[in-house]
This record gives sequence, structure tokens and C-alpha cells, in this order.
Amino acid sequence: MTIRTLVWGENVHEKTNKRVAELYPDGMHACIAGALNKDAGISAETAVLQDAEHGLTAERLANTDVLIWWGHAAHGDVDDKVVERVCEAVWGGMGMIFLHSAHFSKPFKRLMGAPCNLTWREAGERERLWVTSRNHPIAAGIDNYFELENEEMYGEPFGVPEPLETVFVSWFQGGEVFRSGLTYKRGAGNVFYFRPGHETYPTYHNENVLKVITNAVHWAHNPAARLADSTAAPNVPVDKAPEKIEERGVTLHQAGEAGFR
Amino acid sequence: MTIRTLVWGENVHEKTNKRVAELYPDGMHACIAGALNKDAGISAETAVLQDAEHGLTAERLANTDVLIWWGHAAHGDVDDKVVERVCEAVWGGMGMIFLHSAHFSKPFKRLMGAPCNLTWREAGERERLWVTSRNHPIAAGIDNYFELENEEMYGEPFGVPEPLETVFVSWFQGGEVFRSGLTYKRGAGNVFYFRPGHETYPTYHNENVLKVITNAVHWAHNPAARLADSTAAPNVPVDKAPEKIEERGVTLHQAGEAGFR
Amino acid sequence: MTIRTLVWGENVHEKTNKRVAELYPDGMHACIAGALNKDAGISAETAVLQDAEHGLTAERLANTDVLIWWGHAAHGDVDDKVVERVCEAVWGGMGMIFLHSAHFSKPFKRLMGAPCNLTWREAGERERLWVTSRNHPIAAGIDNYFELENEEMYGEPFGVPEPLETVFVSWFQGGEVFRSGLTYKRGAGNVFYFRPGHETYPTYHNENVLKVITNAVHWAHNPAARLADSTAAPNVPVDKAPEKIEERGVTLHQAGEAGFR
Amino acid sequence: MTIRTLVWGENVHEKTNKRVAELYPDGMHACIAGALNKDAGISAETAVLQDAEHGLTAERLANTDVLIWWGHAAHGDVDDKVVERVCEAVWGGMGMIFLHSAHFSKPFKRLMGAPCNLTWREAGERERLWVTSRNHPIAAGIDNYFELENEEMYGEPFGVPEPLETVFVSWFQGGEVFRSGLTYKRGAGNVFYFRPGHETYPTYHNENVLKVITNAVHWAHNPAARLADSTAAPNVPVDKAPEKIEERGVTLHQAGEAGFR
Repeated sequence: MTIRTLVWGENVHEKTNKRVAELYPDGMHACIAGALNKDAGISAETAVLQDAEHGLTAERLANTDVLIWWGHAAHGDVDDKVVERVCEAVWGGMGMIFLHSAHFSKPFKRLMGAPCNLTWREAGERERLWVTSRNHPIAAGIDNYFELENEEMYGEPFGVPEPLETVFVSWFQGGEVFRSGLTYKRGAGNVFYFRPGHETYPTYHNENVLKVITNAVHWAHNPAARLADSTAAPNVPVDKAPEKIEERGVTLHQAGEAGFR
Repeated sequence: MTIRTLVWGENVHEKTNKRVAELYPDGMHACIAGALNKDAGISAETAVLQDAEHGLTAERLANTDVLIWWGHAAHGDVDDKVVERVCEAVWGGMGMIFLHSAHFSKPFKRLMGAPCNLTWREAGERERLWVTSRNHPIAAGIDNYFELENEEMYGEPFGVPEPLETVFVSWFQGGEVFRSGLTYKRGAGNVFYFRPGHETYPTYHNENVLKVITNAVHWAHNPAARLADSTAAPNVPVDKAPEKIEERGVTLHQAGEAGFR
Repeated sequence: MTIRTLVWGENVHEKTNKRVAELYPDGMHACIAGALNKDAGISAETAVLQDAEHGLTAERLANTDVLIWWGHAAHGDVDDKVVERVCEAVWGGMGMIFLHSAHFSKPFKRLMGAPCNLTWREAGERERLWVTSRNHPIAAGIDNYFELENEEMYGEPFGVPEPLETVFVSWFQGGEVFRSGLTYKRGAGNVFYFRPGHETYPTYHNENVLKVITNAVHWAHNPAARLADSTAAPNVPVDKAPEKIEERGVTLHQAGEAGFR
Repeated sequence: MTIRTLVWGENVHEKTNKRVAELYPDGMHACIAGALNKDAGISAETAVLQDAEHGLTAERLANTDVLIWWGHAAHGDVDDKVVERVCEAVWGGMGMIFLHSAHFSKPFKRLMGAPCNLTWREAGERERLWVTSRNHPIAAGIDNYFELENEEMYGEPFGVPEPLETVFVSWFQGGEVFRSGLTYKRGAGNVFYFRPGHETYPTYHNENVLKVITNAVHWAHNPAARLADSTAAPNVPVDKAPEKIEERGVTLHQAGEAGFR
């Protein structure tokens, strides 16, 4: 069974910036999805900001194993209801990969609980990504490092929680470093942040970048059934306790009553 | 210099439930603050939901080193603007301690980026909290475990991110376990979750519980100056790069322009 | 391609204790390997302490994807050279699973760098293992918890490093708790500790225990090629630096010289 | 009460290399201890490899709150019994800081359980250390980064376990990156690795380096009493169980017998 992957693109600069349109005539999302579909284990589709409900209906999320997100100029245009829906899908077990400027996207900030800020510079400088976790499945097929001749700089401090694992750290020509590949788990969902991908450079035509994203789809995929209610907080009645106990003391709730939220 | 601590209480059940009022005639927040003020290194005040801006104005947060939060019945009544203000203070370096049912409070869910759900039972059963990180400063003065004869049960799975450190794990008479003391860092701020404290039991009169909360205030306190703008993402101009570089390629932004958010 | 799994057993109490011999006439290692071989993706063999080089020659380790370790009475009889060989295999990418009393085995203590101590009681009491990481692949097929009616108690504090993820926490009838399923990475190798398995109880005939061990083999398996020299610290000559630099200052080493170890 | 700090130096190159002797006429250990003693809260002494028992008797370790370790050429000359004694002190609560080439020292490798390898180049190139954990107490007084004009390069992958927190990441002129400040806990002891300090450069005369080491002493100090036996695994007799239980099933051990190790 293939991993049902949805590549979400903001699809703004592809329409408004000549350079971006030349590099990605069908959009970055289409470029990435095309590369993923070369992997026999992945079946990738696309959705964009401009679609109804941004292409992220409850039904579509229920049929998505891994969601990839790229956004930049229009973070604020993403509907908060859709953001919550996406996060609940992650908590229920959907894998999610955030690319580049998606560090400031609503769902990433929501899932991190942190400012997710950084320093940046747009100078087309050289970036070199070093593997910091040997033989990590996300880095499969990558030697100790790979290079991107032209990229935007992102610099530390990167305002994210300490990850489960740091998979890549970037070196920049202008003197900065950045933790470029970070893994997290939120609820039952695996989350990966991957830094490269400024839209005015041909980053998503780079074979190493595409290899990492492909690896990350496999890593993020959780084959377990999606949790039915990923936010439920069920009461366990006294007579259903694993060990026999007797109720003592004063209670706030009546039997069977829901808790406060 | 003392640690300026603010104990925030929802202050609802103290007014509406006879048993809670008997246990905490001045409110749980006052009970906790009173205990903290016995520590020469701490200076504790209180604020409640019913205060203007919930007692959490920007000025007051700027003068708070550690904020303690207890809420239950009225999570939904907390103003989203205040929640965001509190989280920004944490990201800037304010310590924060969440107690018991605050697992479902807005600021905790916001900082965790996770559902924060659990199972629960209100049966006045015995809880035994085991130390899982030897000599952790938050557990100072606690032997391998301590007991609470009557508590509400919270059970795993607890829907929070993997913590930096697990300090306590609880055993419940009815057969469940729970990770009861968890440390996190969000931005520059230290965060601690501590499980005990159901309002119909005398938990905040227990000396071990009060010792842990007192320890946690010291642990959470970050003596560094609060970050001026904890969410800023400054541009580093090409001529200010640590290493000399020359701009290459096409840029999206004009020099000095702010990034997209 | 199947995961080549080697189940290592100390094989002492099976020979000397009547009860253990009745429960595991061919040894616990054979019982576990038999269960693993029911999984089409796993090919399991066994090795024991009494084999030449404990059955763990360099060649055999090179052909092992995942090593499972059970020891108790004879930890001290394991040859230090074999221990180092096993650890180097882990650092090179071999997965490793430690069961029950293997918390005090030489390779586990060596890989943890910590005392790995705990409290214990042999009373045939009830243990209930709770899942603390929802939908973790190691817990696949397990509901929120499962029970073992008779087990040895292991209690906190458990003297191990903070894990990457806590997958199970145990409740014991006598009042203790224990972090029973913990994941680590050491070098390129995935490591899992799983608590149950006292030899006088039929634990390795329990279907949930066997399910978890089977899951853990899949989780621990790293399909990447084993690192050729997992402890090498290569010099990068000045003329091979990724960026062009010139040597400055006084050097300790001559060009091409090995570093100090 | 001041933090009793012991700076341990291998003290070999100071005696055999002209450049090192010029930079550190009294040894690097004396240079570091001198800087620490300027902090009113720290009382620092020194010990060297050539002292009886390397200056690390059981009594001296019992009176040391934080131990700092620098070694390079003579790792192999450190007595294994002393290494074990040092590690047990850490497990009991002694703080420990490893500097630079101590990544390959026996106690660091023992505490990490990992190869601790890296790549390296001795070219006197520029290093820039970036803070990756804002307002971390170990980085107090450091802006977003600081520079060392001449240092040895250490490059990723660094073969250590994922840390509790990554505090510094280094940029090197020759194109590599390195996680230069990492925190761990082993038993009750706090451990910090800090990268800079090649002996042919004046690194330990740099005020930022000395500031970080001073901060790290404060961070690593655990004021709790040292654990009496940091490796004990006590039996809990049935009649001392926190909850009343009755013994069931067959036991391996007689009452009061010690466990297997």
C-alpha cells in the first residue's frame, strides 16, 4: 500500500514573481509531488491555498497519510479552522513535514507552541547541510553532507522546542549556522522540519533535497489507524477501574458527566 | 533578590462549591502563595480570573519572574489576548508552572502544541508520586516517593510532547499511572507541569506538594533579562553578515524590508 | 528481505532451576525466537553464553540486524571483549533490544553510561503496562494497556539516561511504578529496553509481550549499510576542507598523522 | 557556600611543546582555575595526571562539587579504576564538564556509551559559536554568538547521544559545523561538553570561553547531598511494599538475598 501524500503549496509567488514562475511553472507543490511519485511506495497529490477550504477538507485529511506544507507570503490567509483541523489530524496520527518558510506557518507555530523565529538573509549564498545523526532514515543515501550553491540564510537562535533528534545542521557562507532537520512527535503524529527551499532558487530541483523529502515521507508515515478522537479525555467510572476501589470523599462531577475543558 | 512569583487562580469552585470553600476559604491561589512566601527567596502575589484582564496586564507580566496557573471549570473564559500575552512572556524568559487541571488550560495547550488529554476518575483514591530523576532540583527534599491519600486519578496516555525530563510518575490505587512532573523549555522560558491538586481534596495543604511547587519556582526562574522581542525574526543585511559575502541571484525582498509572517 | 535477528540467552536458570526449565524447556531464547519466526519479516536464530565467544563472533554480528539480550545470574561471565564488539556493532547500526534483568548486563550498562539500577521485589504480583506514546510503532496492536498477572517488581528511580521516548510505564500491585519501555540511539544503532520477563513466570508465553518484542525488532532495524568503522575520527586535511582556507598558527600534528585517542 | 571545583589537566603538552608552554606556563588547568577563582561563588583547585591516583582519590572526589576535565595525548594513561571512581561520583551527583579533546577521554566515553568520534583539522581557522538555546544559563552574558580567530576544527557527525539541550553550535571557516555545547544528566550528575580549547591557541585566555566555563560550573552544581550508593539496587521485601500484597508463585531468591549483578 502506498503512502498517500498531500503536498500543500501557498502558490502565490509562482503566480506573481517572474523568477519563481520560471523555476516552477506548475508550482513548487507540483514539482515536489512529481518527485515523490517516482517512489513506488508513495502516491502524491497537491492542494493549494486557493482551493475551497484550502484543499484540506476533513475528508481529504482523513485520506492523507503525510501532509507536506510550504507557505511564505500568505501565512495569514490560512483559515484558523483549517489550521485546527490539520493539527487534529496530526495528533490523530497523520505525518507532517514543514518546508523552509513554513517555520512561520500557522500549523507549525501551533504544533510547536513556540515563536519559531530565526534570523535571515537573502543573498543567494552557499549552504552546506551536515548530517548530525548517523544513518538516520531521513538522511538515507546522503553522505556526511550535501551543498546548495544558492540559498537564503536562516540563522540561530531558532525559536523551536528541543527536538527528539537533530538530523541536519547547516553551514552558511555568510557565517551563520542553523538546525535544518528536526524531528518531533505531537500526539500520535510524526513531524519533521526541513529548512531548504527559498522560492527564487532551484532548490526543489536538487536531487539531495528531494531525496531527504522522500525519506521524510517514509519516516513520518504512521501505519496505525488514525485515532478516532485525538483530543478526548474520557472518564473512567469507579466500577471500570482496572483495580477494584471504592469511591471516597466529595466529588465535583456526577457519574457519567463530562470533564471541564 | 527574591523571585517575583504570581499565583493565578480561576477562583470559581472556591465560590460555588461548599467543600472547596471550606478547604480553601481564601482560594487555592492564596493558599499556595502563602506557602511560597515562607521561602525567603520568593515573593508571591495572586491574581484571579475575575480581575481586570484576569490580573495579567503586560506590566504585571513584565514584573513576574514565575507564573503559576490553576484553572478547571472556566478555561474557556480566559481571554485569548491574555493567553497570547502570557505565552509571549514565557518565550521571553518568564518561568511558568501549570498545576493539575491546568493541563487543559489555554496557555498550556498553546505552549505544548498538543492535545494534552488524559483519562480521569474522581474517587478520592490514593496517589503515590515516585521520583524518576534522582536529585532533580524540583524533587529536592523528597525521598523516593510521597503519598496523597485522596486524589483525583489522571491516567496515561497523557497527550503531551516528550518532555526534557520526567521528574515524577504517579501510581494510582485504581490501577493507572501518570507522568506527573514534566519539564519543558519554550523560547527562553522554563515550563513545569505538576499533576496533583484536585480542588475537593486538601492537596495544597500537603507539605510535600508545597515543597515541590516551591522547588519548581526556583527551578523555573531564569535570572537573565527578559528578551525584548521574543518573536522577532530580524533580517541580517548582506553587509552585516559575520563573513564577507556578495549578494547573488534574484531576491524577493528589497533591502531593509521585513519578512513575511 | 527479512530482518536477521539473534536472540541471546544466558541459559543458566533454564538448566539449574526446575520451575524455569518447566516453563522454557528449550530456553527463553528459543521461546522468543520461535515467536519472532512467526513474523514473515523476521528470521530469528539463537546464541547462548556457553557458545564459543558466547556465539557472538565478529562475523555473526556482521550478519545480525537486531540483537536481543536476556541475562541475569551470569552478567559477570560475559567476556569484556565480546561486550565491546557488541557495542561497536550497535554504534555501526545494529539494533539492540534489552529484556528485563539485562538492565544490569554489561552491554546495556556500557551503552547507557549510567548505573541502570532500580528497586525490585519477587512476589509474583500483578503488573500493568500503560502505553505513554500513542500509536508508537513499538506499541502497535496494544490498547491503552495490558496486564501480566505474575511478575517481578522493578521500581523507580531507574538509573538510566532520559530516553528519546518513553513508550511504556508499569503499574505494580505493591505500589511501585517503572518506565518499562524506553528508546535510545547510540551511534547509528537503535536501542530499546523492555522490562517484563522474570524467568520463573510464563512472561515470554504472553502474546502481548511477544507482540511488543516483535514490533521492537521492526523498529530497531536500521536498513542502512553498517558503518565500516563506527569509531573512526578522520583528519580532514587543509586542502580537502569544503571551503578554501590557509593553514595558520602552530600545529601539534604533522600532515596525515592520526589524532590522539 | 562556594562551589568546590576541581580542574583536571593532563599536563603533557605544557611540558613537551614549546608553543603550549608559552601560552600556559602553569598549565591550562591552572589558567582555567585562576579564571574560575575570580567568581566569588566558586573555589577552584587543580589536579593533574601525574599526581598520585591522578589527584582523584575517593576523598578528593567526595569534596568536589564540579570536576572539569581536559586531556588529549595521554587518554590511555588514565587508570581505569580512577575512571570508574569518577563516573560513580557523577552518578552520585557530582557535576562534570568535559573540554575539547576530552571528547575522547575515558570518563566521557564511559558516561556517553557512544563512540564520541568526529572529524578534525588543525589549521588555526576561525570558529564562531552560536547560541541555540536562548537565555540558557550556560550562555549567560553571551550575545547570539562569539568568535575565536584561531581554533582546531571539529566536524559533524559527532558520535554522541542526543543531548538534553543543544546550547551552542559552531561554524568553521573551512566549511564544517559542530554541536559545541551539549548538556546531559547521568544518574544524579549534570554533565556538559564544551568544544573549544586546542592547546596551541590562546583559547583559555578568551573571556567568552572563560565566561561559559564559569556559567557551566554554576549550572552543573547539584546542591543536593551526594547519593551514598549511586549504584545500589535494593530489594524491597514483600512486607515493606508500599501496598499490602501477598507473595505468589515461585521465587529465585531467598528473603533478604542480594540480586544478581
